[in-house]
Amino acid sequence: MSTTAPRSTASPSQEDRLWTVEEHLEDILSTVRPLEPIELQLLDAQGCVLVEDVTVPVSLPPFDNSSMDGYAVRVADVTGASGEFPAVLEVVGDVAAGQAPGLKVGPGQAARIMTGAPLPPGAEAVVPVEWTDGGLGGGPATGMKARSKAPEGASGQVRVYQGAEAGAHVRRAGSDMKAGDRALAAGTVLGPAQLALLASVGRATAKVRPRPRVVVLSTGSELVPPGEPLKPGQIHDSNSFALTAAAREAGAIAYRVGAVADDAETLRTSVDDQLVRADLLVTSGGVSVGAYDVVKEALTAPEPARLEAGDGEEGDGEHGGAEPAAAGVDFRRVAMQPGKPQGFGLIGPDHTPVLTLPGNPVSSFVSFEIFVRPVIRALMGLPEDQLHRPRARAALDAGKALSSPRGRRQFLRGRLDGDRVTPVGGASSHLVGALAQANALIVVPEDVTSLEPGDDVEVVLLG
Amino acid sequence: MSTTAPRSTASPSQEDRLWTVEEHLEDILSTVRPLEPIELQLLDAQGCVLVEDVTVPVSLPPFDNSSMDGYAVRVADVTGASGEFPAVLEVVGDVAAGQAPGLKVGPGQAARIMTGAPLPPGAEAVVPVEWTDGGLGGGPATGMKARSKAPEGASGQVRVYQGAEAGAHVRRAGSDMKAGDRALAAGTVLGPAQLALLASVGRATAKVRPRPRVVVLSTGSELVPPGEPLKPGQIHDSNSFALTAAAREAGAIAYRVGAVADDAETLRTSVDDQLVRADLLVTSGGVSVGAYDVVKEALTAPEPARLEAGDGEEGDGEHGGAEPAAAGVDFRRVAMQPGKPQGFGLIGPDHTPVLTLPGNPVSSFVSFEIFVRPVIRALMGLPEDQLHRPRARAALDAGKALSSPRGRRQFLRGRLDGDRVTPVGGASSHLVGALAQANALIVVPEDVTSLEPGDDVEVVLLG
Repeated sequence: MSTTAPRSTASPSQEDRLWTVEEHLEDILSTVRPLEPIELQLLDAQGCVLVEDVTVPVSLPPFDNSSMDGYAVRVADVTGASGEFPAVLEVVGDVAAGQAPGLKVGPGQAARIMTGAPLPPGAEAVVPVEWTDGGLGGGPATGMKARSKAPEGASGQVRVYQGAEAGAHVRRAGSDMKAGDRALAAGTVLGPAQLALLASVGRATAKVRPRPRVVVLSTGSELVPPGEPLKPGQIHDSNSFALTAAAREAGAIAYRVGAVADDAETLRTSVDDQLVRADLLVTSGGVSVGAYDVVKEALTAPEPARLEAGDGEEGDGEHGGAEPAAAGVDFRRVAMQPGKPQGFGLIGPDHTPVLTLPGNPVSSFVSFEIFVRPVIRALMGLPEDQLHRPRARAALDAGKALSSPRGRRQFLRGRLDGDRVTPVGGASSHLVGALAQANALIVVPEDVTSLEPGDDVEVVLLG
Repeated sequence: MSTTAPRSTASPSQEDRLWTVEEHLEDILSTVRPLEPIELQLLDAQGCVLVEDVTVPVSLPPFDNSSMDGYAVRVADVTGASGEFPAVLEVVGDVAAGQAPGLKVGPGQAARIMTGAPLPPGAEAVVPVEWTDGGLGGGPATGMKARSKAPEGASGQVRVYQGAEAGAHVRRAGSDMKAGDRALAAGTVLGPAQLALLASVGRATAKVRPRPRVVVLSTGSELVPPGEPLKPGQIHDSNSFALTAAAREAGAIAYRVGAVADDAETLRTSVDDQLVRADLLVTSGGVSVGAYDVVKEALTAPEPARLEAGDGEEGDGEHGGAEPAAAGVDFRRVAMQPGKPQGFGLIGPDHTPVLTLPGNPVSSFVSFEIFVRPVIRALMGLPEDQLHRPRARAALDAGKALSSPRGRRQFLRGRLDGDRVTPVGGASSHLVGALAQANALIVVPEDVTSLEPGDDVEVVLLG
């Protein structure tokens, strides 16, 4: 081929540089910082990362209490008791959960006690009601009658058929956690059990990193909301739905703005309007090499001429700071398929991170999984090993060999079943029908150009 | 032991019957029906089960369109083109995405075309801009200049350095999905990709089973909300937080009512008030054999005397229908540890399912995992294999042998790391501190009374 042939001789200028997937991801993750912690009500903190060690202020349980419904007794009074020779004790009253015990258990006495109620002074153990006649005198009991219907159960006599050691059926104060113990360590993700623990130690709120607010904006003059009729040349916007749902699934609070037409001023206005509620902005479309690539046009660092033209409002934040990273979005080519055109930068007065994804539905979906999901989880303060989807190995279940472009990491959509994965829908990036059948991405490394049926491949597990 | 000894001679009356875990679960799941489907906006339907087959109304894409930014050409005009001998074509205009093509490509002509734009009449293929000089005459181009800044790009001449076959870089109408194809089958769970597909075929809404609304209510006069000081005999309510969070994690919309005191009328009023927003009611506490077990007292099928006393309002729904299952809550003993006292029934005018869990924090947590989670997911219409937490096998990593009661299935809390699981916190059901360290439940079958270190055990994976 002649030296004027275009494809392999382009000079390696910054614009022409081909970034690896890792380089692009590393650039993003080394720039993005976890969100500042705030104090949230427990149920608002579900799924969030705790940023403080929480210590136990008061031992748990705070007092000796009964683990059974039964009778609080003195050990000596029931020692040797049996079905044939029961111990007969005077019932001096009830101790219900939530009551400070107002009675004492003396020799020959018992207090009827409920699960969770404080062990009254004098008592040393609890015998379950099933070891007694329940005060009814009719042999073994299966339970107590409701106090509201049979108040006489709190007095009279009880026969105890079995002895108990000191501390039997008693939860000792501090047996769960002791005052000063560390209940939870900073960095813990708050699930149901951790929230239970915080509530148990009296905490109504927790200091956590909040869920990131992610604004999702698709671009394209061809996009029409679903539910509205299509004119010639139009298609329905699907990316804004997919990306919003995916952002939520990753842990974010996501706002779908919908589709913006391919006009740079309109897009700039939308972005400026939305930044106030965004910890992260995600766009799709308009980032390739066309003449109508509106995201590229609107979010590339503005040139001085533009600033002089009077639209300094957006520029203020971008140029006021000393950080060069705040100067706008850097548009790149990443060595992957789909998803080559990518962009990342910080914009606006708060240096809000922006990821600009390509517009093909499959490209934007894959780009989200590989780049946006880790950002959302980094903003949440999750540790490195929880940023990414889990991966696994599987055998390729395909009818014929698959080809993959050299020098590009390919992410094929696959259906994983056990340890076998079947490609669905081929390599084209517009095949949303097949995407909906996939539960995994098949990763074909940059140096692999062909895969044979049965080959061992890496897969990314999608939810 | 004498025949009057109480523990093993109780008659097998209904009240004394010991249910297996499977019997109780099967009774619940055979009673609970999936919620009636409703039409929801796409993003409100995330995570829900589709109840209709969705077919493709219009083929996707609806028209032949470009997969690249480049030039729409006639094949004959570029055949044999090379870097040395480029084809030189007249640019007749732009075709942007969203435009109905208003131009035709004749012999010797090309239209500048953007990704997603309809292929104009006359054109047979697209050559990417990188295979051309971009109309600039300066050799290979890396991209186009923005139309808004350089409108002259839509006219003049373009040099094409490489030929293209018919259909090259063209996405054919219907190549993704054809009109009449089934896009999604009834029963599909709607994740991001499935929502994208629905949007793509023009659907703004989907007919799905909604997320169940779960009302969570803890009971106990000893319970104080976290954040408030404890008086003697009091502890903080933690179950209502844990169960609400767990219900959400299972897929529900959960409402935390908080703790209700141990008074039957108060509880009945709370329940009556809450039923209007409940597809499922979950309570904790008050279900054992004590004299203050308020849930048992309030939700057991009312006796005729009570109805005559004028509180027929609650009874109406319970007694109006022919279904015996609607008559109230059946309280049971289930052969498990923790979690022996359980209850299940249908109450109120809508026969709302109620699960009454024991009140110890660990008991209620385990009971939720084993019984409530599957109910929530059954209400969502999820298939049998998605009702339960996944299970695995692991080697027991313990310093000494563990004992387990014969005849009861024990659920120990464990920390799973790879294929080894370490018990945390012992068997006591009040150890919420240890519960927060667990990521698995270790299942000890009914007939196993001892486990040795290294034994192979079944584990339930918690989230």
